[in-house]
Amino acid sequence: MTTIDALETPRLLVDEARMLRNVARMRAHVRALGVTLRPHVKTAKCMEAARPAMETPHGPITVSTLKEAEYFLAHGVTDILYAVGITPNKLDHVVDLRRRGARLAIVLDELEAAQLVAAKARAASDPLDALIEIDCDGHRAGVRPDAPELIDIGRALAAGGARLAGVMTHAGGSYDCRSTEAISAMAAQERDAVVRAATRLRAAGLQCPIVSVGSTPTATFATSLAGVTEVRAGVFVFFDLVMAGLGVCRVEDIALSVLTSVIGHQREKGWTIVDAGWMAMSRDRGTASQPVDQGYGLVCDTAGAPLDDLVMIAANQEHGIVAARPGATGAPPPLPVGTLLRVLPNHACATGAQFDRYHVLRGAEIAGVWPRLNGW
Amino acid sequence: MTTIDALETPRLLVDEARMLRNVARMRAHVRALGVTLRPHVKTAKCMEAARPAMETPHGPITVSTLKEAEYFLAHGVTDILYAVGITPNKLDHVVDLRRRGARLAIVLDELEAAQLVAAKARAASDPLDALIEIDCDGHRAGVRPDAPELIDIGRALAAGGARLAGVMTHAGGSYDCRSTEAISAMAAQERDAVVRAATRLRAAGLQCPIVSVGSTPTATFATSLAGVTEVRAGVFVFFDLVMAGLGVCRVEDIALSVLTSVIGHQREKGWTIVDAGWMAMSRDRGTASQPVDQGYGLVCDTAGAPLDDLVMIAANQEHGIVAARPGATGAPPPLPVGTLLRVLPNHACATGAQFDRYHVLRGAEIAGVWPRLNGW
Repeated sequence: MTTIDALETPRLLVDEARMLRNVARMRAHVRALGVTLRPHVKTAKCMEAARPAMETPHGPITVSTLKEAEYFLAHGVTDILYAVGITPNKLDHVVDLRRRGARLAIVLDELEAAQLVAAKARAASDPLDALIEIDCDGHRAGVRPDAPELIDIGRALAAGGARLAGVMTHAGGSYDCRSTEAISAMAAQERDAVVRAATRLRAAGLQCPIVSVGSTPTATFATSLAGVTEVRAGVFVFFDLVMAGLGVCRVEDIALSVLTSVIGHQREKGWTIVDAGWMAMSRDRGTASQPVDQGYGLVCDTAGAPLDDLVMIAANQEHGIVAARPGATGAPPPLPVGTLLRVLPNHACATGAQFDRYHVLRGAEIAGVWPRLNGW
Repeated sequence: MTTIDALETPRLLVDEARMLRNVARMRAHVRALGVTLRPHVKTAKCMEAARPAMETPHGPITVSTLKEAEYFLAHGVTDILYAVGITPNKLDHVVDLRRRGARLAIVLDELEAAQLVAAKARAASDPLDALIEIDCDGHRAGVRPDAPELIDIGRALAAGGARLAGVMTHAGGSYDCRSTEAISAMAAQERDAVVRAATRLRAAGLQCPIVSVGSTPTATFATSLAGVTEVRAGVFVFFDLVMAGLGVCRVEDIALSVLTSVIGHQREKGWTIVDAGWMAMSRDRGTASQPVDQGYGLVCDTAGAPLDDLVMIAANQEHGIVAARPGATGAPPPLPVGTLLRVLPNHACATGAQFDRYHVLRGAEIAGVWPRLNGW
């Protein structure tokens, strides 16, 4: 049996049992709400980790890059939504992916973009599927559900030979909520915005088959998705400290951790130096704005149990400084050079992207290695 | 001629002329100080970018991971310093790299680590070369130059069959300096600490051939390196906004940028949305603590000229929000969907690591593609 003692550090670990439990819970919840789960594979970027969350071997899935679309198409996934506003320099690639069998849909939120897509659809004789992105919370992209431009965009697509495949929104504002009640209210706001947009488009005589919402927090606390056809969510597969800080999961649900070794100490400062820095953890400090700041990560023993109040307080490229969090009482445990630790990340999407593979923990055993995708 | 218009976005660009100018300046400066340059390849992780900074095809170089050591050894580089405190789980790999021709030296700062290394040297019949890391500024790792333990560590190495190859330090505190005079003083402090440690080791009858200092700021503003044998520096190859904020370079010296496309707008907020988010820029916010906060990056036109006061004020995974910096006057330029922009990064080491290759700009031409290494 191979165990973590056989690994060089740092390494990225996935606790398989936790991951499968997280996925089963979300699938059951979304099924109970009567909608389709279109998992966002931008978190794991890995077929083995994405497959348990997928309803069929062919999808549907959501991707954040065309490189993800390429990878998942090569693994037999065909129903793919590329959920970042399209640019002209990607349209040839989109057409090519569709020629090779991907039912790839794209996203846009401006009349000008719709006209570019429509022109491409005509030139390529491909009725490109496009969703209009709706702004439900003022957080990022999207057209407001009541904006006059919404109808113009829909008409421009259809008139040009593209296909209005639906509407989608993402309640990024849910990450700033301070209670699960606030997240639940945000889920209703997300749903209302996109259903309102779909209603307006249909009233204008346009088709709008897909009505898509999503974020892990709103998906978790949604109580009704009437009028919605699908939910996109990604980070729920692994969860992370930001999600735990929001109350979306418990710390013991977090399936992703970075295995690291102690390389030294500054004992008079109470510091333990480890060989995972920001290159391994990422620079994400998502918990910095939450009630409990977890530094660059929460430090656990090799079994994955948090070592009380030990966090990574600072990070250089390949060095992390582990110390008791400010205000902690009690002496930290002795951690001699070579001691293995596991660090739970602030943000699974960011930490995962620092590695090219997962080492899969099944109990104490390294049961496999899953490659993951990065870049563009 | 291929130009950036042929690229899908986001892409990582290197301005070759700027890079070569940066490298030539640092090489001349270090040569004038009478010491060897051992460039830190952790920034570029790419043979093509590292080679101009190297004194010979065989090195010397500094690496931050054993994967970098593997890659550069495969490219003919043999004189390699792995500058992160060694862990027991890497010693077999170190011995293996040395058997395959690498003159690989390792680093440690504790008696316990020295004993582990000495035991390994004996067991493997390999006189492992180890440098003792010296703490010159209380910033991270290292033993204080006056600590009694310093001599014990040196003796433990030699007694066990390893080789005390020297001492090294890194003035990470130079990143917090607020003037070039303060950086110059930090360079003197860095030098004094490591020379003091070498003097003590030699007085105790131990060999100490290498006396190594380094950081790009202190290397740039060092005026005397008497007693030092080599300088390690990495980020000077590309430079970045943090270095510009410190006064170590000018904005127009920055050789690295992320090419991105406009995907939409929130016009009432003055936002332009682009397809480079934190996945492309990294989460590094190193300028946040400097007098001029550059957000997630400074926005330039396709020729690399800054667009006055436009910065990436916020970032999601694949979305960046570009807007005038707080307090800016004047209207931002119109940037229709599809407009190409180049964003200068806070931290070249962090942004580079988000990509697997560089597109090399020679004037307006994409003159080549350089692969780069990531992970462990």
